[in-house]
Amino acid sequence: MHARSNEQAVAIDVMGGDGGVPRVMSGIALAVKLFPEEIGNLILVGDEREISGQLLRSKRLLEKNIAICHASQAIDMSEKPMCALRYKKDSSMFKAIGLLKESRASGILSCGNTSCLVAGGTLKLRMMPGIDRPALATVIPAPTKHFVLIDVGANPSTSTRSFIHNAVMGSLYYKTAVNASAEPRVGLLTIGTEEGKGSESVREAHDTLKKISGEINYIGLVEGFQLFDDIVDVVVCDGFVGNILLKTMEALAGTIKNYVRAEMKKNFLRIIGGILAGGAFRAMKRDLTADKYGGAPLLGLNGTVVKSHGSSSAEAVAHALRLTFRLSKISSKNFLSNAIEKANELIR
Amino acid sequence: MHARSNEQAVAIDVMGGDGGVPRVMSGIALAVKLFPEEIGNLILVGDEREISGQLLRSKRLLEKNIAICHASQAIDMSEKPMCALRYKKDSSMFKAIGLLKESRASGILSCGNTSCLVAGGTLKLRMMPGIDRPALATVIPAPTKHFVLIDVGANPSTSTRSFIHNAVMGSLYYKTAVNASAEPRVGLLTIGTEEGKGSESVREAHDTLKKISGEINYIGLVEGFQLFDDIVDVVVCDGFVGNILLKTMEALAGTIKNYVRAEMKKNFLRIIGGILAGGAFRAMKRDLTADKYGGAPLLGLNGTVVKSHGSSSAEAVAHALRLTFRLSKISSKNFLSNAIEKANELIR
Repeated sequence: MHARSNEQAVAIDVMGGDGGVPRVMSGIALAVKLFPEEIGNLILVGDEREISGQLLRSKRLLEKNIAICHASQAIDMSEKPMCALRYKKDSSMFKAIGLLKESRASGILSCGNTSCLVAGGTLKLRMMPGIDRPALATVIPAPTKHFVLIDVGANPSTSTRSFIHNAVMGSLYYKTAVNASAEPRVGLLTIGTEEGKGSESVREAHDTLKKISGEINYIGLVEGFQLFDDIVDVVVCDGFVGNILLKTMEALAGTIKNYVRAEMKKNFLRIIGGILAGGAFRAMKRDLTADKYGGAPLLGLNGTVVKSHGSSSAEAVAHALRLTFRLSKISSKNFLSNAIEKANELIR
Repeated sequence: MHARSNEQAVAIDVMGGDGGVPRVMSGIALAVKLFPEEIGNLILVGDEREISGQLLRSKRLLEKNIAICHASQAIDMSEKPMCALRYKKDSSMFKAIGLLKESRASGILSCGNTSCLVAGGTLKLRMMPGIDRPALATVIPAPTKHFVLIDVGANPSTSTRSFIHNAVMGSLYYKTAVNASAEPRVGLLTIGTEEGKGSESVREAHDTLKKISGEINYIGLVEGFQLFDDIVDVVVCDGFVGNILLKTMEALAGTIKNYVRAEMKKNFLRIIGGILAGGAFRAMKRDLTADKYGGAPLLGLNGTVVKSHGSSSAEAVAHALRLTFRLSKISSKNFLSNAIEKANELIR
C-alpha cells in the first residue's frame, strides 16, 4: 500500500460492479469534480496495475491524496458468501473491510456482491451493541417527497426485533441523507392497515413500535399505495420484500420511461412536441433519478459501509462516495444506542 | 328475488366498492354496451330499493335479463372476516357466494372487502381437491408483454405447497385471460437468482417446481428487475409480497403520470408540445391502463369468484364482469387436478 496519508480516508473496493474498474474510477473522478470540499483522502483497493493505469488518465485524481491498496483477488457477483469468506481473503472487498476494521479507513464503498458485503461486514466488523442484524437502507426519489426504504436486502427474514432496529436506524439515516431538521415519519409496510392484518412479525413489531414512539416518530402501518403520498418518510420492511420492491420500482420506472421515449419518436408531430416539451422530460430526469442516491448504507455495523448498485453509473458512484464521507463523519452511536436500548427493553 | 331466468347467470355484489351502488351499476351498464355478446343473465345482490332506483335510470340494463336478490346488510371495507361471518349473514357479499354455492349463479363478482371475500369464499365454497388455500391472480399490463402476478393478497404467508399450487393456477389463468395459445413461462419471485438465496419456502418451492416442469413451463427464479422483460409470463409470490408489489406499482405509475401531467402544463411551450405529442400520451393510457384487467379471480375455490378493486372505475367493473363470465364458462378442474395431483405427490 502506497499510503500518503490516511486521515479521514475512505477505502473503495474498485473491483466491484458491472462496469469494472474504469466505471468506478470515473465515478471517483466525478465526485472530486462535483464535491471537491467533501471528498477527502482515498484508498483505492484492487489490482494495483489496473488502478495505476486508470489513475494516470485522470489529472484530477492525480492531484488528490490517493493511496492504493493492492488486492490480488476480486469477488464476482455470483460468488457465495461462505466460499468467498474462505477462498477470497485477499479480495478487494474484504481488504477494504479490513482497512475499516483497523481504523486505517473511516468508511468503505463497494459496488460489489451484496451478500458477500453483508457477510464479510458482519463477521469482521461485528454489530453495534444491541443490534442483531445489519440492514441496507436506500432513498427512493419521488416527486412529492423522498423516502427511505429499509431493509432492501441485507436480512431477508426479519424478526420483530430487527423490524424495530430498522425503524430506529432508518429514522437516523433519513436525517443524514434527506433532511437533517425533520422528525421523520416512520411507517411499517404491510397489507391492509387494519389491526390484525399482515404477518405475525409485522403485527408484533407494530405493537412494540407504538410503545417507543417517543424515541422515533412512528405513524403506524402503511400500505404500498401510500408510499408516494406525503405521509411517510421512512418505510420499514424485511429485506425480502424491500429488495423485490426496490428492483421492481426501478424496472417499472425504466419501462415507462422507455415506452414514452419510443412513443414520442413515432411520428413527426410527436418529435416536435417532444422538443417543445423537452423541459418537462429534463425535469423528470432531474427529479426522479436514483443516481443522486446511488449509495445504500449497510447500517448497524461498527463502521460506515456503503453499497452501491452493481450497475451504478459514474454519477451514482460519485454520489455514493459523497454519502460515504458524510456518514463516516457522523457519530451515530449515541443516537442509536438510546433508542435501541429502550426498544430492546420493551421487546424483552 | 325476482328471478326471470338464472341460466348462466353471474351474481354481482353491488354494495361493495368505494363508489357505492351507482359506480358498480355504471360498470354493469358499460359491460352490456361494450361486450353485448359476452354478458349473459345477471343477478344483482344488494339493497333492492337502491338497485331498482338505479335500474330505472339505465335503458340498456332494463332490456337485459336481470334478477334482483335483496340483501339487508353490506360489508364495509374495514370489517374483520370473523365478525362479518358471524354478524353479516344477510350481506350482499355472502348472499352472492350463497347463490354460487347453490348453483343458482355460475360465478360472482365483488368490489368489496378482500379478506371477507377470501374467508367467506373458502368457508362456503371449499377448496378444489388437492389445493390448500385460495390465491388472487391479476394481470399486470406492461408495454412489452402482460404478465400474471399471483398471489396478490389472499394468503399472506405461503407454504411451499401453496407456491406450487399458485404456479399451476397462475399458468392456467394466463391462458384464460391473456393468451390461450401460449405455454406461459412461470417464474418464482425471489431476491438474487443464484441457488440458495431467498427464503426457505421459496428455495423448497423452486426445487419442486423444477420437478413438475412437464406440467407447467417453469423457467426458474426471477428477480424484481426482470418482471417487465419478455422472459416471464406468470410471476409467483406469496400474498404479502404480491399485495405490496401490486399496490406500490399502481402508486408509482400514478405518481409518474401525475408528475408528467403537471410538468407538461408548466409553460406555454410545453402545453403546445403536449398537444402535438398527445397521441403518445393517449397510447400510454390505452396500453398501460389496469382497467382492462379490472378483475382478480380468487383461484382454487369450487366456483368462479372474481374480486375487483374497491376503487374500481366503471370501466374496470365492466372488464371484471366480462372476466367473470369467461371464467365461469371454463371447466378448469381437469387441467388443474392433473398438475396439482402430480405436484402434491412430489411434495409428499
